[in-house]
Amino acid sequence: MTSRIVSVLTLGVTDLARSSAFYERLGFRRSNKSDEEIVWFATGGTVLALYPWNALAEDATVPSEGQGFRGTTMAINLSSEREVDEFLERVKSIGGTVVKQPQKVFWGGYSSYFQDPDGHLWEVAFNPFTPVDASGKLDIRE
Amino acid sequence: MTSRIVSVLTLGVTDLARSSAFYERLGFRRSNKSDEEIVWFATGGTVLALYPWNALAEDATVPSEGQGFRGTTMAINLSSEREVDEFLERVKSIGGTVVKQPQKVFWGGYSSYFQDPDGHLWEVAFNPFTPVDASGKLDIRE
Repeated sequence: MTSRIVSVLTLGVTDLARSSAFYERLGFRRSNKSDEEIVWFATGGTVLALYPWNALAEDATVPSEGQGFRGTTMAINLSSEREVDEFLERVKSIGGTVVKQPQKVFWGGYSSYFQDPDGHLWEVAFNPFTPVDASGKLDIRE
Repeated sequence: MTSRIVSVLTLGVTDLARSSAFYERLGFRRSNKSDEEIVWFATGGTVLALYPWNALAEDATVPSEGQGFRGTTMAINLSSEREVDEFLERVKSIGGTVVKQPQKVFWGGYSSYFQDPDGHLWEVAFNPFTPVDASGKLDIRE
């Protein structure tokens, strides 16, 4: 049986144009289905979407106020420690905030965290035990 | 060029066994790389992971307190309105909380929202304009 997948991951953002440019500079490919109300990044699996923060809350019929830790992180896995370092340099150069400097971590990998312009937390990691393809797809199947 | 992908989406949870069972009952296939500290669902694209809420915050080196809207939603896209209705029935039967009853929405689709046991927001939708495969993978490429 095919596993269910997460069809779409949507991040609420306060400036759609700014966030769209941010993620494009990180290597996400913007779909031409995007418009001034929503931005789609076609990834070959889970689609990453950007949508105005308040409109996203409204769509879910919940209050838009929120603060502190969001209990959700995204990860970009790369193929070496050097790629992690270089990626974090790019993040800094385009306005991301480094939260955790790249470092060796307890599970044997090399990891760092940054926040996008709206505070969404991303891990950037090299996992020596789990290979990734050129896009960052993890080889976890069964 | 291949688009970058989100390698992993990790949800912070307060009871790993409970949440693992919840997502398995929704059709996500648990990887046998999972253990008592982290649960992986292999999806063929972005990997869905469950990790203890406080440990996730600690890994990101941020305070674990948070409240209100998290600015992040996940979507499961299905192939008909009836599938959405049936899926929401299953969600209710396993302890999920329906936040928005299935309904026709402004963009022409049929959509609903539920929260998992830790409040993570999921949309369950039928989009008549965008086909999905059996796993829920959206056909958005360019």
